[in-house]
Amino acid sequence: MSRLPESIHRLVEELRKLPGVGPKTAQRLAFHLVVSGKESMDRLIAALAEARDKVGYCSVCGNLTDQDPCAICEDPKRDSSVICVVAYPKDVLAFERAGAFRGLYHVLHGYIEPLKGIGPEELRIQELLKRVSSGEVKEIILATNPDVDGETTALYLARALKPLGLKVTRLARGLPFGADLDYADEMTILKSLEARREMD
Amino acid sequence: MSRLPESIHRLVEELRKLPGVGPKTAQRLAFHLVVSGKESMDRLIAALAEARDKVGYCSVCGNLTDQDPCAICEDPKRDSSVICVVAYPKDVLAFERAGAFRGLYHVLHGYIEPLKGIGPEELRIQELLKRVSSGEVKEIILATNPDVDGETTALYLARALKPLGLKVTRLARGLPFGADLDYADEMTILKSLEARREMD
Repeated sequence: MSRLPESIHRLVEELRKLPGVGPKTAQRLAFHLVVSGKESMDRLIAALAEARDKVGYCSVCGNLTDQDPCAICEDPKRDSSVICVVAYPKDVLAFERAGAFRGLYHVLHGYIEPLKGIGPEELRIQELLKRVSSGEVKEIILATNPDVDGETTALYLARALKPLGLKVTRLARGLPFGADLDYADEMTILKSLEARREMD
Repeated sequence: MSRLPESIHRLVEELRKLPGVGPKTAQRLAFHLVVSGKESMDRLIAALAEARDKVGYCSVCGNLTDQDPCAICEDPKRDSSVICVVAYPKDVLAFERAGAFRGLYHVLHGYIEPLKGIGPEELRIQELLKRVSSGEVKEIILATNPDVDGETTALYLARALKPLGLKVTRLARGLPFGADLDYADEMTILKSLEARREMD
């Protein structure tokens, strides 16, 4: 690859740092960008610079925002009695895409991962406890991922929140929509059986 | 998606223009970039700006380069009697990655596509004819894609180059390395049968 112009090589190295982008994809993207012309490069650079300069974290919920508090925290139409706790800003996006939740969010910015030295104090848990202390919040939905770190974090939060007299719930486990029983893993089948519901 | 901060939304729109990047991937990339922090964004912006400012086309072969003529055209160790003709700069990269070709390249910047109004005069064909007129070139390898546009372009070039007394060759057709006959399409099987070689 010594034949790759130095400045394209550097661009490839930067693009490789993106999630899901391997060396060949990075080269393809770099070539596409360079061939697409200066105007198109200018637009991408401007968009990156604007995002870099304007986007930060909401001081209330911890979500990405270009205003503080963020548009969701500021929205009087959202139900401030329910807070959905997620690990990352991208999880907020997943909920908003689904459009099914009208309450507020709280972004922890990670999971409790003892093996990596990430304890509760590394996450935005004090901020959550402070938010619920106002008394306005009635329910906390723990929307952590259904894996070991998600479980650990949810259990910790449930123990911290329940003594405050709050309703603490967790996302349902079960078969995903459109799933095929034949391909579902054992844990999913087990959980969907445990949590079975009577049909009306 | 009205909840996406405006500056992230604009970044997503720019990222969606990249090849192979759909709306969800673009959102994932944008969130990753913003969360990765200002230093990391700065490095990507700098790499993009450098590529935008420094990379252009080689005046000899038409490949992407940050010097003119490009490093390949300038390399005295390359065999200047053989020119490999490709459609796009990314094809040069594919050959260089394989490391199997030691001659020079010529990038056409497209295929002859009559239905899209792209005729021979839109491509760098005059430049190729001028290069071979020096008399130093003995062989032209037509390395266009094995599809309709690639065939059309190769046929046109063969007709233009053969009268000049040059050896004009084309990449072999056949089964790709690691292929499974069971999954190969009929045309590939047909071509690999036609071009079968005696084993020694």
